[in-house]
Amino acid sequence: MSDHPTASSVDVIIVGAGLAGLTCARDLHRHGLDVVVLEARDRVGGRTHSVELDGQTIELGGQFLGPGQDRAYALAADLGVGVFPTYGEGDHLVETAAGRVRRYRGTIPRLSPLALLDAAQAQARFERLARRIDTDAPWRSPGAAALDGQTLETWIRRTTRTRAGRRLFTMACQAVWSCQPSELSLLHALFYARSAGTLQQVIAVEGGAQQDRLDGGAHELALRLARRLGDRIHLGTPVDRIAQDEYGVRVTAGDRTWRAAHVVVAIPPTMSGRIAYRPPLPAARDGLTQRLPMGAVIKCIAVYPEPFWRSNGLSGQATSLRGPVSAVFDSSPRAGERGILLGFVEGAEARFLSARPAPERQTAVLGQLAELFGPRAAAPAGYTEQDWGTEPFTRGAYSAVFPPGAWTQYGHALRPPAGRIHWAGAETSPRWYGYIEGAIRSGEAAAATITALPRRDRPAKAVSDGGPVRKSAT
Amino acid sequence: MSDHPTASSVDVIIVGAGLAGLTCARDLHRHGLDVVVLEARDRVGGRTHSVELDGQTIELGGQFLGPGQDRAYALAADLGVGVFPTYGEGDHLVETAAGRVRRYRGTIPRLSPLALLDAAQAQARFERLARRIDTDAPWRSPGAAALDGQTLETWIRRTTRTRAGRRLFTMACQAVWSCQPSELSLLHALFYARSAGTLQQVIAVEGGAQQDRLDGGAHELALRLARRLGDRIHLGTPVDRIAQDEYGVRVTAGDRTWRAAHVVVAIPPTMSGRIAYRPPLPAARDGLTQRLPMGAVIKCIAVYPEPFWRSNGLSGQATSLRGPVSAVFDSSPRAGERGILLGFVEGAEARFLSARPAPERQTAVLGQLAELFGPRAAAPAGYTEQDWGTEPFTRGAYSAVFPPGAWTQYGHALRPPAGRIHWAGAETSPRWYGYIEGAIRSGEAAAATITALPRRDRPAKAVSDGGPVRKSAT
Repeated sequence: MSDHPTASSVDVIIVGAGLAGLTCARDLHRHGLDVVVLEARDRVGGRTHSVELDGQTIELGGQFLGPGQDRAYALAADLGVGVFPTYGEGDHLVETAAGRVRRYRGTIPRLSPLALLDAAQAQARFERLARRIDTDAPWRSPGAAALDGQTLETWIRRTTRTRAGRRLFTMACQAVWSCQPSELSLLHALFYARSAGTLQQVIAVEGGAQQDRLDGGAHELALRLARRLGDRIHLGTPVDRIAQDEYGVRVTAGDRTWRAAHVVVAIPPTMSGRIAYRPPLPAARDGLTQRLPMGAVIKCIAVYPEPFWRSNGLSGQATSLRGPVSAVFDSSPRAGERGILLGFVEGAEARFLSARPAPERQTAVLGQLAELFGPRAAAPAGYTEQDWGTEPFTRGAYSAVFPPGAWTQYGHALRPPAGRIHWAGAETSPRWYGYIEGAIRSGEAAAATITALPRRDRPAKAVSDGGPVRKSAT
Repeated sequence: MSDHPTASSVDVIIVGAGLAGLTCARDLHRHGLDVVVLEARDRVGGRTHSVELDGQTIELGGQFLGPGQDRAYALAADLGVGVFPTYGEGDHLVETAAGRVRRYRGTIPRLSPLALLDAAQAQARFERLARRIDTDAPWRSPGAAALDGQTLETWIRRTTRTRAGRRLFTMACQAVWSCQPSELSLLHALFYARSAGTLQQVIAVEGGAQQDRLDGGAHELALRLARRLGDRIHLGTPVDRIAQDEYGVRVTAGDRTWRAAHVVVAIPPTMSGRIAYRPPLPAARDGLTQRLPMGAVIKCIAVYPEPFWRSNGLSGQATSLRGPVSAVFDSSPRAGERGILLGFVEGAEARFLSARPAPERQTAVLGQLAELFGPRAAAPAGYTEQDWGTEPFTRGAYSAVFPPGAWTQYGHALRPPAGRIHWAGAETSPRWYGYIEGAIRSGEAAAATITALPRRDRPAKAVSDGGPVRKSAT
């Protein structure tokens, strides 16, 4: 590769136009710095995304906000995006492992009292353990080595006393981490819950992380941020390589090159590991990105002429111990002029159905919605789905899952910059890891780090084009 | 990226000139097919490698052969590379966790009888479990889900009864998998041992996988294979992207492009995940490569004017429960005209020392060799080391480590081709996973798959240059 004489120079390059990259770009721009945002896709928003279906805005990615997510609410207010509560009036449904559907109110599903007690006791123990976690440095928490030496599944097996209780707790874990409890470290599960406050906050609708929604969908946040940044954002520009030396960075995407004083890589860790770095990143940082796979989830959306379940006294919220859909929400627009049911297929179910033909998948999902909400649910006016594992620039959702040993052996390499390369994204935030809130916080934190640098390390457009960035080996 | 009109056409492209890629290329070439081997490094051999130090050939990578590794012995014979036994006469040494050094003979170190008994019982239970594993499809083994739901550490804690026994068994695991027992699935550990026969075969010198060495080093195998392939091998050619359609594949490295009917990707899984594929690979294959990190090992080599330990009645073999070097071997050339000690720093110790300055690391290693073999060991004529985690085109060794859940959720995507893209490498072999033997078998298997295809799918140089391989998105 030649040293492109046509490289553009800016102060800071941001890789990824998700909410982390966009908030970072906004803050740097406000500080008077010249930025460019390089986005692989032909859209902004990362793991938030919307499409139009049957005249309705359909949310295909992250969509909920809840108490404690202060930066997300502030961003919505700043951008003039309205907030409204997730619909929850009436009875919720629970489907047992045997396929029986029951109505209930409040937060406790109608299941065997023994199973409920068992799961509740397990959750109480989990919450107590989570309080010990140091979210800034999980590997320094008391007993970190032992917590990181076992899977969440091992802990569930040891902690629950009934088969039904274990199943209930396991189902909640699949819904939260979109993988099997075998795949994640107990330490990571505890860290994740602690970073959100409590596990209860993670799983709850009212008072929890699914409490609120946004007018026009969460994707509006990214769209409006992008509008302000204008042509500083380059879509369809997947970054291939990042070179750095003591004077600056050079970022290459296809046959285009940009130079800057710093680069912020605001994409999931596993994706950041696919960029070629010159010089190569330290072993610890590379080893980390080898170890942080994304969860597996397919978001399934059915649009109906009206939210017909509401007139039957149903909230549209359902939980299934049977699957393939493990959780359902009423995702209708605020005014309820149409009815939208949103179903999540997660972990092992997502992997299985992802490999099946689309019609078979749709039949399975709609069949289950009909079991829950009656035959009208089987014939929506529109149906669509988003399988995040097939998205080449995300390759899974909701977030990266730390397997055992990863936090204690490699966690220290997650957040510190590698020279002039800074890391952002929902996985780098000690608060609300994996959430919209975490993404926003991480973008703001990366911007704050760069603007706080001593003057001589501060961005300066004067990075010369003929500087000594080493010639890339290819 | 434009459709390069200058693309070269061959029958099969092989990515990676390690022993998998080279044996695959040899077999295809023997079948009369036109091949090209694209190698990222400026050398062949992959995880086998040698350098000259102080007039001696120093082995920096895989170097041992043992009973059952039939294809490796056959390859050595075919290439005229002599085999000789690893030096093992005299007393071995064991260093306790407290730093005491003891001599012993045979296979059982002089440690507390209780600890030895405890570790031996654990090993016996491990061997019994390993016999159940189906190495062709570990996820179908009896009880696979439970075995893959826990870490090896969880199993060790539950199985051993003494602290010293646990430490001993743990040390052996670190030496075998070059990571902490927290990082790997019990199912993977069992599969690995079973793929080699037994855990005993994995850890033993005589009668085991460390029994023999090769004249001039194991790297000779790759060098001689490469000589026969001549200019079909392109060094310094890291592959960036692979596009395929129903007519063939197009492989791009920097500004060069090759076309062929098939491509064999013969590099570690985590590295294969960094290539950009068009169309994108299925979610299962991508998810697999997100989940298979490499172990961590630094190979440390000290060269002396003579193997002075031999005249003291020492074999040069040592094991340490204290570290940082966990295992030492006499790695002198066959005739013993010089003395070479080889020390392995593995897992957590490798990660810690990898991040320290080189002089500090050397002092730590030579200090420990001196504790074991006396003061002469502290002043070698030459010292070198190979930290595989810093190698940008391997990023760890000895092999990929499956964390819990990976085999059962993604193992099925390890070996089957993705259309015209075939997978080889030591991790794809059901026998001798991770070994030189596994690499050779995998290369031979990939070649056999391609030559066995029905005629219409067989390679044919007539893949047209203007064919409908989709324009790459970048």
